Amino acid sequence: MKNSAMREIPDYLLEKGEFSLYNPLITEGLKKKESLSSAERQKQSRKIISSLEKAVTLSGLRDGMTISFHHHFRDGDYVVNYVIDRLAEMGFKHLRLAASSLTNIHAPLIRHIQNHVIDSIETSGLRGELAEAISKGLMDIPVTFRSHGGRAYAVSSDQLHIDVAFLGAPSCDPFGNANGYSRDTEDTSACGSMGYARVDANYADKVIILTDHIVPYPNIPFGISQYQVDYIVEIPEIGDKNKIMSGATRYTNNPRDLLIAQKAVDVIAASGYFYDGFSLQTGSGGAALATTRFLREKMLARNIKANFALGGITGQIVKLHEEGLIKKLLDVQSFDLDAAESLKNNRFHQQIDANYYADPFSEGSVVNELDVVVLSALEVDTEFNVNVLTGSDGIIRGAIGGHQDTAAGAAFSIVVAPLTRGRNSSILDHVTTLTTPGDTVDVVVTDQGIAVNPLRPEIKERMKKAHIPLSTIEELKEKADKIVGIAEPLPFDDQVVGIVTYRDGSILDVIRKIRSDQ
Amino acid sequence: MKNSAMREIPDYLLEKGEFSLYNPLITEGLKKKESLSSAERQKQSRKIISSLEKAVTLSGLRDGMTISFHHHFRDGDYVVNYVIDRLAEMGFKHLRLAASSLTNIHAPLIRHIQNHVIDSIETSGLRGELAEAISKGLMDIPVTFRSHGGRAYAVSSDQLHIDVAFLGAPSCDPFGNANGYSRDTEDTSACGSMGYARVDANYADKVIILTDHIVPYPNIPFGISQYQVDYIVEIPEIGDKNKIMSGATRYTNNPRDLLIAQKAVDVIAASGYFYDGFSLQTGSGGAALATTRFLREKMLARNIKANFALGGITGQIVKLHEEGLIKKLLDVQSFDLDAAESLKNNRFHQQIDANYYADPFSEGSVVNELDVVVLSALEVDTEFNVNVLTGSDGIIRGAIGGHQDTAAGAAFSIVVAPLTRGRNSSILDHVTTLTTPGDTVDVVVTDQGIAVNPLRPEIKERMKKAHIPLSTIEELKEKADKIVGIAEPLPFDDQVVGIVTYRDGSILDVIRKIRSDQ
Repeated sequence: MKNSAMREIPDYLLEKGEFSLYNPLITEGLKKKESLSSAERQKQSRKIISSLEKAVTLSGLRDGMTISFHHHFRDGDYVVNYVIDRLAEMGFKHLRLAASSLTNIHAPLIRHIQNHVIDSIETSGLRGELAEAISKGLMDIPVTFRSHGGRAYAVSSDQLHIDVAFLGAPSCDPFGNANGYSRDTEDTSACGSMGYARVDANYADKVIILTDHIVPYPNIPFGISQYQVDYIVEIPEIGDKNKIMSGATRYTNNPRDLLIAQKAVDVIAASGYFYDGFSLQTGSGGAALATTRFLREKMLARNIKANFALGGITGQIVKLHEEGLIKKLLDVQSFDLDAAESLKNNRFHQQIDANYYADPFSEGSVVNELDVVVLSALEVDTEFNVNVLTGSDGIIRGAIGGHQDTAAGAAFSIVVAPLTRGRNSSILDHVTTLTTPGDTVDVVVTDQGIAVNPLRPEIKERMKKAHIPLSTIEELKEKADKIVGIAEPLPFDDQVVGIVTYRDGSILDVIRKIRSDQ
Repeated sequence: MKNSAMREIPDYLLEKGEFSLYNPLITEGLKKKESLSSAERQKQSRKIISSLEKAVTLSGLRDGMTISFHHHFRDGDYVVNYVIDRLAEMGFKHLRLAASSLTNIHAPLIRHIQNHVIDSIETSGLRGELAEAISKGLMDIPVTFRSHGGRAYAVSSDQLHIDVAFLGAPSCDPFGNANGYSRDTEDTSACGSMGYARVDANYADKVIILTDHIVPYPNIPFGISQYQVDYIVEIPEIGDKNKIMSGATRYTNNPRDLLIAQKAVDVIAASGYFYDGFSLQTGSGGAALATTRFLREKMLARNIKANFALGGITGQIVKLHEEGLIKKLLDVQSFDLDAAESLKNNRFHQQIDANYYADPFSEGSVVNELDVVVLSALEVDTEFNVNVLTGSDGIIRGAIGGHQDTAAGAAFSIVVAPLTRGRNSSILDHVTTLTTPGDTVDVVVTDQGIAVNPLRPEIKERMKKAHIPLSTIEELKEKADKIVGIAEPLPFDDQVVGIVTYRDGSILDVIRKIRSDQ
């Protein structure tokens, strides 16, 4: 038999169905030769769609499907509201919104929930008006809260199937190489790493990039590859530049935070995990940030360098990297402009995705290689359980983030908190909401004392050797109770408004409706 | 119902089977908290296996399965022979060997084919004794030849399912971050980009890294991510350093190559695709390499800069990049040490995988954004069809490589060849083996004349305008025939020894057994 190039092909080669005969004109989807120049092809890119509505129609989105977003623009994000407004206008209903997190700026979602455009939400956290309305019973279906690693696992294992991902990007070329900054124009906003967005780009059925800066091809190095992008929509503004990211994260001047940070560093130094080549992650709260500063002094004094820092990278961490004190940075989320700049310029500052960061079922995800993590908390209880999700009024005002993931992965996890906040104790018999199990929390550091988890007797011994004064967690609780008294039980109803999952997707706790006469 | 953290969870939340109750002790595969330091975890990495045999057993490899290899070590590769020797000793039979390419160093495979350890082969090319033996009928099952883009597509679409990938890496950390060079030790060999290996790492069921340099965690930036690596085996030597990669690819001094290169550059300059912001790929043959040099002069003279160069990156291309003449480099395979060094040091020199490079079914693979590609050929025919696989004696001595992919993807493809080679013409009525269809080849440049494909009349016009003397392809053939005469038909038998596929996996041509009395 002859193929379309007139070459004789023996029939028996085609019998098993393994091969077809060459005939490019009938092969569906095979890219045809084109004579357009690269410049022209960029101008005419079929991926660039003239409106979001058209892109949505092309994506095949239907009522009841799951749409996803990232939270790299934090409180400066315009993308979620812009997209949901358009979807509402287009008449979509009963969507599941799977965001990597939601913040104060997303209050307009309340209306879309009331109108049944959005029926359910998956997120790492909630804040502001939306969080308050949900806490008071806005939604029929409870919100599912997942850690960053838990979400990455749920998405990659298809427990959380994303139909269409809407991913904002500060820069994108005409074929879809997108990034959290631009090397080609100066006036873009920047979010640095796109670590959470990359998971959605990898696994969503359809990926739509929303950008306010289409840049020349190829936009490399890229955060999201052209390979995973179906459509690109240019919109006037993806966010408020100053809120997406502004300057460096400031040092705290709060003396209580400084005291906690100093104690935390003493604990790290005595823990057995402070050695040349150690690894660390610190959060972005005041005390955690200050930890970085005091740790620097300790590293210089003992001539210790870190192999890598993970996380949530801040300008403070970048400074230590540039000083040679931290060899490599693994960045799933850049917390400030200095971190974004460093990601752009420092060769050993690497963008990683959330699966690489914190997948709970992988031997090799980076949280599992951590020596030390310093984490904040809203509440801790006498079982060392942590709450980072609900306030002392029972209203949602936080996010699980990587808390569960790093506490479980790191060899040594420290939770820092002031002993009391206003009229509330941070140390309770039972946390209001359980977000991080106590058996993964090794030490609690407060301004009024330090408690080591009895599960880690060797740590207790090391602290004693270093003459670090210790309390039991019960002693800390009593001390707090003496200052602020014991709180009344919160007026919760039966209705479940939030499901707090653990990294593996199991139910760790539920958040119940708080009575709105509060 | 209470979960294992003693939190009360309403039964109805568990009814749909969407969620389980938190109980980390019974969740299979969930990483448990460990108190080992990061340094200790690296030492005790469960991914590092003490012998290849043990890793193979763990991988679940069985007779008849498909194993894969990359060819980034070229003629210095020890990995293929080492692995197949061990598999033969272990008694494996009837394996399919899917390499991204095979070279002279793989002659020992002949014995393993005779002993039925290897029953079939997939590759981009064959050279040396193995190629000759296969050309003369060594194998019962024909070898399947695929282009680099065609292989990436076949692997990613599961037409070519890889059970176990054996991937050599000059450096790898204890959790599997592997790369084509090392930043942590000086004495490693280097292959630069691992673009072909990355496809196998992405899609193989099991991935075994073979390395002679286990380096500290995290080995970033990485070519292959820890996420995709199952086992790591340390072996004494992955290859012959000097043959894996040695110095820069040399300039040719062959006056005929220089003449062809000069003509090719004149053609590019007149083609309409030589503009500020154009893009290019050049091969590594003598004439193609020299093209880069002459192109540089033309770019300087006309003040034209390229947006990007693709491919097969050479030291010459790197020089243009470092001079600011080529903005970005997209590197699927580094051709020399200068290219590998640049990949390590230049921020805009990006490692890409073979899907990103040349997937035939993607709107966005980079070959589709090329303006100009300069390709070599063993034979061209009067339909502009090209043969890069079999010599004039009918014996296999080449590789498809990215030839098909770039010819089809680029707006303008130039094939360079000397008009005659020894007593053989390069221009025939019909190429011995069809590897690149003529309708994707735009111009043929020889030392004795230039022919434009009649499918591109606008190119012919532009050449005329630039006073570039043209011949028809038939005139070139006649000229060659006058010099060397017309060759006798080759003594082929009926038996098919090779199947040449097009990018989409269809059969473009077959290679028949050459009689060994030759």
